[in-house]
Amino acid sequence: MTGEFALIHRIARLAARAPSPDVVLGIGDDAAVLQLPRGSQLVAAVDTLVEGVHFPIGTAAADVGWKAVAVNVSDLAAMGARPRWALLSVTSPDPRAALALARGAMACARRYGATLVGGDTTRGPAGASVTLLGTVPRGRAVTRAGARAGDDIWIAGVLGDATAGLACAQRRLHPSARDRASFLRALDRPNPPLALGLALRAVASAMIDVSDGVLADLGHVLDASSLGATLGAGPLPASRALLRAVPDVGARFAMQCRGDDYTLLFTASPRYARRIETIAQRAGLPATRIGSTHALRGLWREGPGLRPTRLVAAGFDHFR
Amino acid sequence: MTGEFALIHRIARLAARAPSPDVVLGIGDDAAVLQLPRGSQLVAAVDTLVEGVHFPIGTAAADVGWKAVAVNVSDLAAMGARPRWALLSVTSPDPRAALALARGAMACARRYGATLVGGDTTRGPAGASVTLLGTVPRGRAVTRAGARAGDDIWIAGVLGDATAGLACAQRRLHPSARDRASFLRALDRPNPPLALGLALRAVASAMIDVSDGVLADLGHVLDASSLGATLGAGPLPASRALLRAVPDVGARFAMQCRGDDYTLLFTASPRYARRIETIAQRAGLPATRIGSTHALRGLWREGPGLRPTRLVAAGFDHFR
Repeated sequence: MTGEFALIHRIARLAARAPSPDVVLGIGDDAAVLQLPRGSQLVAAVDTLVEGVHFPIGTAAADVGWKAVAVNVSDLAAMGARPRWALLSVTSPDPRAALALARGAMACARRYGATLVGGDTTRGPAGASVTLLGTVPRGRAVTRAGARAGDDIWIAGVLGDATAGLACAQRRLHPSARDRASFLRALDRPNPPLALGLALRAVASAMIDVSDGVLADLGHVLDASSLGATLGAGPLPASRALLRAVPDVGARFAMQCRGDDYTLLFTASPRYARRIETIAQRAGLPATRIGSTHALRGLWREGPGLRPTRLVAAGFDHFR
Repeated sequence: MTGEFALIHRIARLAARAPSPDVVLGIGDDAAVLQLPRGSQLVAAVDTLVEGVHFPIGTAAADVGWKAVAVNVSDLAAMGARPRWALLSVTSPDPRAALALARGAMACARRYGATLVGGDTTRGPAGASVTLLGTVPRGRAVTRAGARAGDDIWIAGVLGDATAGLACAQRRLHPSARDRASFLRALDRPNPPLALGLALRAVASAMIDVSDGVLADLGHVLDASSLGATLGAGPLPASRALLRAVPDVGARFAMQCRGDDYTLLFTASPRYARRIETIAQRAGLPATRIGSTHALRGLWREGPGLRPTRLVAAGFDHFR
């Protein structure tokens, strides 16, 4: 490859291998032309990954590409929206790494049913910005603002594995080789639960993806819905690997609040509890009820004593 | 401002000042939800500007924001599409510069009828990535591939002012203060001719924005349409300022082929010539016929002799 045009040409050829009927015009013109299904609304998210900020220096380019798409799939899943089209902006020190990054991005897009339809490439430090476009049936998007007092708060899947992966990459955690591999996979190749997000559209009152950290993200939902919440005294859902690698309850809880999990936090009326368990089972993920919402603002946690502990006051700023 | 959330909050407040009925959900959730008009297709473009690559170090943040949106408006104009929604990914060394950049981006979006509906912010060297989403009536997008042999080749507006601006910024050109200001404006605050692009939908067989340089961009159209072309012997359209600042014909021609012009190159049947002049006049821009297409591949130029000179062979690689 001798330059930008040759690189774009190769990426275009790879993307064209999986043509999609809703792509009227893909890579290679001034812009992509896309056909939305009838009765649907467009859902759009963008996320940029910068070397040394969002991923450790030395991360494989293909993993950066995968993650750049996955974090956006996570956003769309949290709206109950189906990803359809991705635009990828690559910054890379050399064309070979840019191609590897694009391949990783396309692999993730394909995994979630989306097609790469455009983007651009620039020489520079490794990084990627992905815009993911999807659709949702008209009026059916699940926002952060729909939670009602008395709703259950649920977490899909487990929390803390990506943070453990980062700790491994930074040589601050030394688990077994197998657990280490599983943590690094959670860090580098997140698999947001899209099918679950789509199925939850029927029952969730509010939904958000866990990216900033479970307490911060719960805070976003509570702020948007003008509510407070009390968390149960039990532990947050954790993988067996994390239970093994970080046996201390307090240290584990702290790791589980650091984010990068790309799973879903959602609220729902208690009458849907049974249905949610069935939905989660079908998606092959545990769903854990971690607390419930109430009109009193602020975030509390049930403890061993009689009165819940106030974790944080209202307002997301306090969570950081 | 103390951090990312405060910055996003301020940008969201600014964006909310101009609410748009087609924005179902704007900044502040996991993704934006957008309503396309009936009978339209989605048109999507993304472009990233990196400090020192796409704009000189020291460019005002507001100008970077403006240009990051404008280069995408240019892409949509070249499809005959109307911009509607912008997503902005900002990288900036400090929140104040990020806000200034976002303000510039929003000013340009507003100028072209688009609303900022999402994005993200990261600490880092100054740069911006903008995704611009727009709409076009179903099946009416103007691609690069529609030119037919015997079509006229047209340029809207003038070429070379932005390259002159870069030469001024790099102290390689020293025109009058007024011309210098006009060149720098062309470099930092391009105004792509959107209204013209929309009006040309009725007559243009192919269209592209002039960003890589007029010969390279013409080459993209010829490649996509499997045609060649011969340019007339006359000069390319230039501003009075450029005619004054660069009187040498050869040097001016070279500057005019460097790109960053963000105007439109299009092809059309000769029978539309009169109509195109009327359309351009209404848009307040000159339209100049610079040559015509033919089945013989390659790019030629009429000269003083009997035979046209071959400028470049077929294939875009040769243009660089």
